[in-house]
Amino acid sequence: MPEESRVLDIEALESAIENLDIEVFQSTAEDLHYADLASVFQDLEDDEARSFFTKNINLASFPQVLAELPDALIEETLQRFDESSQREILRKLIDDDRADVLQDVSPEARQHYLAMLKPEQQETTRSLMRYDEDTAGGRMTTHAARISLGTTAKSALEILRKYKDSTQSLARIYVVDDQGRLKGKTRLRELAFTPWDTLVDDIMDEADLSILASTDQEEAAQMFSKYDMTLLPVIDEYDHLLGVITHDDVLEIIEEESTEDIEKMSGIAGEQSEQTYLNTSVATHFKRRFPWLLILALLAISSGYVMLRFEHILSHIYLLALYLPMVVAAGGNTGGQAATMVIRAMSLGELEAGSTSKVITKELILGIILGAILGCCIALITLFILPIFDPPLPEGVPLTTFALAVSIALGAQITTSTLSGALLPLGARAIKLDPAVVAAPAITTLVDISGMVIYFTAAQAILPAVV
Amino acid sequence: MPEESRVLDIEALESAIENLDIEVFQSTAEDLHYADLASVFQDLEDDEARSFFTKNINLASFPQVLAELPDALIEETLQRFDESSQREILRKLIDDDRADVLQDVSPEARQHYLAMLKPEQQETTRSLMRYDEDTAGGRMTTHAARISLGTTAKSALEILRKYKDSTQSLARIYVVDDQGRLKGKTRLRELAFTPWDTLVDDIMDEADLSILASTDQEEAAQMFSKYDMTLLPVIDEYDHLLGVITHDDVLEIIEEESTEDIEKMSGIAGEQSEQTYLNTSVATHFKRRFPWLLILALLAISSGYVMLRFEHILSHIYLLALYLPMVVAAGGNTGGQAATMVIRAMSLGELEAGSTSKVITKELILGIILGAILGCCIALITLFILPIFDPPLPEGVPLTTFALAVSIALGAQITTSTLSGALLPLGARAIKLDPAVVAAPAITTLVDISGMVIYFTAAQAILPAVV
Repeated sequence: MPEESRVLDIEALESAIENLDIEVFQSTAEDLHYADLASVFQDLEDDEARSFFTKNINLASFPQVLAELPDALIEETLQRFDESSQREILRKLIDDDRADVLQDVSPEARQHYLAMLKPEQQETTRSLMRYDEDTAGGRMTTHAARISLGTTAKSALEILRKYKDSTQSLARIYVVDDQGRLKGKTRLRELAFTPWDTLVDDIMDEADLSILASTDQEEAAQMFSKYDMTLLPVIDEYDHLLGVITHDDVLEIIEEESTEDIEKMSGIAGEQSEQTYLNTSVATHFKRRFPWLLILALLAISSGYVMLRFEHILSHIYLLALYLPMVVAAGGNTGGQAATMVIRAMSLGELEAGSTSKVITKELILGIILGAILGCCIALITLFILPIFDPPLPEGVPLTTFALAVSIALGAQITTSTLSGALLPLGARAIKLDPAVVAAPAITTLVDISGMVIYFTAAQAILPAVV
Repeated sequence: MPEESRVLDIEALESAIENLDIEVFQSTAEDLHYADLASVFQDLEDDEARSFFTKNINLASFPQVLAELPDALIEETLQRFDESSQREILRKLIDDDRADVLQDVSPEARQHYLAMLKPEQQETTRSLMRYDEDTAGGRMTTHAARISLGTTAKSALEILRKYKDSTQSLARIYVVDDQGRLKGKTRLRELAFTPWDTLVDDIMDEADLSILASTDQEEAAQMFSKYDMTLLPVIDEYDHLLGVITHDDVLEIIEEESTEDIEKMSGIAGEQSEQTYLNTSVATHFKRRFPWLLILALLAISSGYVMLRFEHILSHIYLLALYLPMVVAAGGNTGGQAATMVIRAMSLGELEAGSTSKVITKELILGIILGAILGCCIALITLFILPIFDPPLPEGVPLTTFALAVSIALGAQITTSTLSGALLPLGARAIKLDPAVVAAPAITTLVDISGMVIYFTAAQAILPAVV
């Protein structure tokens, strides 16, 4: 099994590092994929082990390893090499990886490293760094396979042969006019399997799917995924072909965006870190979790204030305490479900701005049904199971009225919370906030407050002898 | 802009359907991508519009449209065609799409449709349907480009030329021995740019990355993404090459798995539906949300029971109600954050079984720091802001002691909840449950109960005059 032999190789590499055994290290590293090398390197805990790794690794394979490392490790790792090795590594990086690497180091180091590149590499790198890291332009590689209008299949193949190692993917070959404007696309197989004097103009297809360099990376990923693309050409506003986004970029974008959504929805602030959970320091974890915890704690005092205001009701019929946490929490749970559904649908590009009223109708109906059925469940439990425990109801408050008050409160809380859970992300988007930010914890806290009010108000209105 | 013209085309198509204008419909449909056609079809609301669509669409392009439709629409849509059109559509589907389509129809329809296929198609389809939809085998296509050991570059190109339309991707060409066992891989560019009498044996690379057909699709996606692959070959336990997983499958897998995680973490039950949010019926939404709501509501009654048991404390110092919801909710929030971090790290394959103790240490330290700092914040608020409102503290209970009790309870609740939030998903995985299932709502409800106990116990222990 290839899988098992890879695991064995990884273990062999780790023990070679531990024993500082150069020979075993180099021969094992040779056989390993750069992604595996990067994860071994990343997990090394002491300085000596990292130095041993960088000193003995084959420089030819290191650029790809470097590109896989988390942002925070990049600068420190590059500094372990002497100047000539740094030059070799930087020059061998693929252009989009190089731009990413240079964006992760300090401004001084960036100038220093830029100066090590060949002039044309400097130019490409500078132009790639102009785009934000999370735009199509920031993600693209300029290594697109491009040929000009009017080229024959034969000379196209000759041109491509020259570039076969420097071009990231020949899955699509783009045809440009003399201004470099994107005019069409074809495939290596079309060129290879056609008479050699055919003009590319005659076998190319329209390049109908492309994206502006300044567009958000999430949109690029959605397009890629919707249209099952192999490569997505990136253009500027004059249709000039700037580069391509490859499918491994798209996988990264999708994982990043999903992680960001999931984290925001749990009240975790700040940029999703590129580092793994275990590699992230306690301080960083703290910084990302503390702000929302504090805000939500302060908000939650409002719930307590409502409890204080309704003291007379609770002290009169203390049995209400039995269902109070449930009514409050049920709102948080159903609101969280609704919010999740709506936020995820927005992330997947399913909800246009025009579908707001459909969402509201759907969640309102759902809220009413969920509220009615859960309300009935609790009424039945109160009427048939609660009496077994001889509940301390004050005189003059019949069990049926008590059950009615609790059920109505639960139903109302669930209906309004379901609707709020759907409305808050939609509202956030309308005012250009990220919908995921207002999700679960914020919604839970808000509907906790309304739950308290609903519960005590229902009790006050329905139960006799409460003033 | 190509993007804009596509939007215009989609609108033109929609109005052609509305006006039942066959000519405009057919000419516009011609220009549109099958993914766009599928989303237009899916959004048609009445039967007449759907019939118009299926009656006038070009049969040559319909198979790809069908493959993009949500599972629940497949059977009904196929039935709109007469038998000869059904045959044409089914025969033109790519093999993995065909297996998916037939897995989505009733058993009787499946037999009926299988009989329409060519004998060799029947065989491939049956063998693909043997694998679960969510395994590597269930996701693969058998259209892998394969050539035998001992073939020259020239004859390899001739073989591939014949299959150039039926083979999903020529990005990797697999080399097999006479038993069909995977021996190596090469690329079209290597074959095209090498002397024609070169044997593939001499230019092929080792096919070191492959996956067993029975492996879970999530593992396939993780491998694909980790190693930046273009195609992932799928093999059986004897190394026979069965097919390949392409990058568009991987995008789908990753989106599906992320959606599933997100939904489970919000207490939404059941399989992630392939339909969009808006296309999912209220009944289905209800079925997915109700079970957890009910379970959590019943669990939450335990919190109420704790409140009942501690009535004497609350009635003596009712001011405790002011912070009760906050202490309880803070535990839910921090527990949810910890659970999210751990579950996501597990989904991304970052946490091996051996890292449990590292996670526990990290979250324990974080829990203590978060608890201590938030506890101090609340103590300060109680000591310096609360007095402004002249709080109703009973005589004999000094404000400082009250602040101390509340802060200690909050700190303890946050520390234990952070730890529980991390431990529950790890525990779930240890007993082979899906970690995401125990997430946010379940954790919130459990730590709500412990929060009540912690709060009242702290009050009882620290505050004077409470018996």
